[in-house]
Order: sequence, then structure tokens, then C-alpha cells
Amino acid sequence: MAVKALFFDVFGTLVDWRTGVAREADIHLSPLGLRLDWLAFADAWRREYDPEMETVRSGRTPFVKLDVLHRRMLDRVLPAFGAEAAPEPVRASLNLAWHRLDQWPDVAAGLERLSERFRLAPVSNGNISLIADLARRNGWRFDAILGAEHARDYKPKASVYLAAADAFDLAPADCMMVFAASHWPGDGVAAAAAGLRTATLARPDEFGPGRARSEPKGPVDVIGGDLEDLADRLSAEPAA
Amino acid sequence: MAVKALFFDVFGTLVDWRTGVAREADIHLSPLGLRLDWLAFADAWRREYDPEMETVRSGRTPFVKLDVLHRRMLDRVLPAFGAEAAPEPVRASLNLAWHRLDQWPDVAAGLERLSERFRLAPVSNGNISLIADLARRNGWRFDAILGAEHARDYKPKASVYLAAADAFDLAPADCMMVFAASHWPGDGVAAAAAGLRTATLARPDEFGPGRARSEPKGPVDVIGGDLEDLADRLSAEPAA
Repeated sequence: MAVKALFFDVFGTLVDWRTGVAREADIHLSPLGLRLDWLAFADAWRREYDPEMETVRSGRTPFVKLDVLHRRMLDRVLPAFGAEAAPEPVRASLNLAWHRLDQWPDVAAGLERLSERFRLAPVSNGNISLIADLARRNGWRFDAILGAEHARDYKPKASVYLAAADAFDLAPADCMMVFAASHWPGDGVAAAAAGLRTATLARPDEFGPGRARSEPKGPVDVIGGDLEDLADRLSAEPAA
Repeated sequence: MAVKALFFDVFGTLVDWRTGVAREADIHLSPLGLRLDWLAFADAWRREYDPEMETVRSGRTPFVKLDVLHRRMLDRVLPAFGAEAAPEPVRASLNLAWHRLDQWPDVAAGLERLSERFRLAPVSNGNISLIADLARRNGWRFDAILGAEHARDYKPKASVYLAAADAFDLAPADCMMVFAASHWPGDGVAAAAAGLRTATLARPDEFGPGRARSEPKGPVDVIGGDLEDLADRLSAEPAA
């Protein structure tokens, strides 16, 4: 093991998207007189995520930022919740809910520690401005923002992981993809197939309290608890 | 004026490339028994910069990272200084001299102040790993690393400035390109033509003590001294 860079999944791995999107939906839609199950709204919006990205991954539609995909998804979900009357400015602002999410409690301190020894970059499907807003909000310092917008395609396409390694002048085997354990196969199978190392974090609350698996269903190089625990485990390895 | 993002030229504007490259050339080539005018070596290497990038801008060769162009330039310059015997590992390490440059004294504090009010990104021809290494070495925190590798073309092509604005979801007029005054026309004419605001810094020592003009030859929106002075001038403007 001579890992030189850590790449991070963001939604679910570094930030709690579900309660954050629910909060933003409440803020934006309650003034219209709507009383919804905001967590169910967040879940429904997120359910559109993978099929929408597949239109790009498959080549059926050209690459656009995740903000654009989020908006298409939102416009489909609003009518299902009786919110088809939401006006344009509300939709535009609510769509940026994904720029205003809060981190899991271990993240800022964990990244700070890991930064002493590794290059760090988000390798997320979120666009650069979205990730930059999350980094400002949560006090993160990365070496660069890599991921989908850099590669102009969406995970789990191999090109996204390979473009990230290349941006840091590293072989894939020098890079480790870090993602929530319950995301297996997702990032895990794809990153490993592209030649990267893999590590999981336990994020039991991503889909509601205690609902997510804390250990991956398949083989990864390091099974961590939170980011502090990952830092401990990696510090036991010889330096790169 | 409602500037929301500041984009920075790097070589000459944020870092002193000339004395840094001279120092690295000395470190790498002195052990081979060479006694050169190291500053003249740095100047000669840099003189190859614009013609080499032009091979990409013109479409004659495909986009490659600046590290690759720097290496082609280095391989041309070494024989002119009697250093054609420099072996491959020395060349490879010396080529990364551009990753190991030191900032002008005002930069870290200036960026810190400007970061409170603006999104900040380098929009340099340097590749992502090069800029990431300079940021680590000098303690800079950017919102993202934009520029040539992001746009896959080289300044002063308009696409590089426009891709940077787009990455931050901003109109060009919401962005300001900051560059050393003596670089006019360079970044200034091209960024203004692309619709960005422009600002210069006085960097009198870029080409040797006091050799560079401290004010631009053409019109820019803000003429600054150093980054602290630029922060003062921009703080006198209404907030975005």
C-alpha cells in the first residue's frame, strides 16, 4: 500500500443529503401552503438520480452539470407531491438545496488530518460550483475538485476515476476511493475495476436512522468507521 | 461592479518563477559539473513557453498538460547551455521545478482576505497537479482549480476564461481576471474581450529587480499594487 491520494464520494459519504434536502424543501415549499412529508420528498427526488445520469452515461444526451440534471428531476417530482404550482424562482432556488448540505460530524476534522499525508479531492458527480459551495459551507480544504464535471461523464463510468488519477499525475493504484459502505457496488466495484484502492465509511443514517449497512457487501481494501477511524487505519500503513 | 469571483494568473502574478526555476536548475545541474548563469537558464526556458503553447492553441497538436510542454521546452534548452548530457531522472525532476516555486510576500495574506468576499480560482496555464503543488507549498486555499487543464486549451484563448466563469455558474462580467501589470496585453485584452473584468498587480521584479512595468499599458478596471492593496480597493466597492 502506497496510497498518495484519497478521492471522496460526497453525497452520503461526506454530507447528509437526506435531511438537508428535506429542510430546504420545507423552507421553499411551506410558504406555498404545502404540508408534505419532507423526507419522502427528498427520497423521491434522489430516486430520480441514477436514471437521469444514465441518460448521459449511455450517450443518449450530452454531458451537462448535475445542477441541470437535478432540475429535470425536480420538475418531475414536484407534481407527484401536488407542488406543480411552484413558480420558477422557487424551483431555481430549491434546486440549489444540494449546494447547502451539512457534513457528517467527523468530516472537517478527518479531512484536516488526512490532508497532512495525502492529496485529497472530491470525486463526486456533483458539479464544481456545487462542491465548492459545500466546501465553503463545511470548511473543507481539498487539493482540487475532480469528478464528473472534470471528466465530463458520470460515475460509475471508469473514465471519471481515471481522469481524477491523471489530474494528480498518479497511477490508479496510488489512489483510493472512499465511499459509504452501503453504496456497494457503486463506487466500489467501478473504482476497483479501474485499478484504484477502495475504502468504506460506515454511514448508518444516510437513508434514515440506522437504515444503511455499515460494512460493504463486497471486498474493499479498508473498512473504516468514520473519517477519523480511516485516518487511524491509514496511519498504520507505511508512508507513500 | 458586482464581482463575485476572482481569477488569478499564477506565473509572475502569484509566484516568482524566475528565481525559483534558477534555484532548481542550480540544484539539479550543478552536480553534473555545470556552472551556468542560472537566471539566464530560467529566462531561456521561459522564452520557449509561448511558442510551445501556440502549437496547442493553433490546433496543430492536441492538448497536453503544461508539464508535458515544459519538458519539450526543457529538452530544447538544455543543449544550448551545454547540458545535453543531463540524464533522464535529472530532466524529469528538474521539469517539476515549476511545481516548487515560492509566492510573492503578499500573496497568502491577500488571498485569505479576498476569500472572505469572493470565490477564488487560479486561471493559469499550469496543470492541476502543478497548481495544487504550489497551493500546498504556499498555503493557499482556492475554491477550485480552473484554467487550461479544465478548459483543455491555453490562455489567452477566450474559451479558458469562459470555461472558468461557467464552472462557477457566473456570467463573465461577474468575474475578474487578476494578472501582473507587465503581462499586458496577454490576460488583459483576452479576458476583457471575453467579457470579464480585469485587475493588475505591480510585480516589478518578475523579470529581475525592478525590470517590469508596474502599471498596464492598456485599460483595466482596477490597477492594484499587491494583493493586499487589491483587497483594499475592492472592499471600497459595493458588495456583490
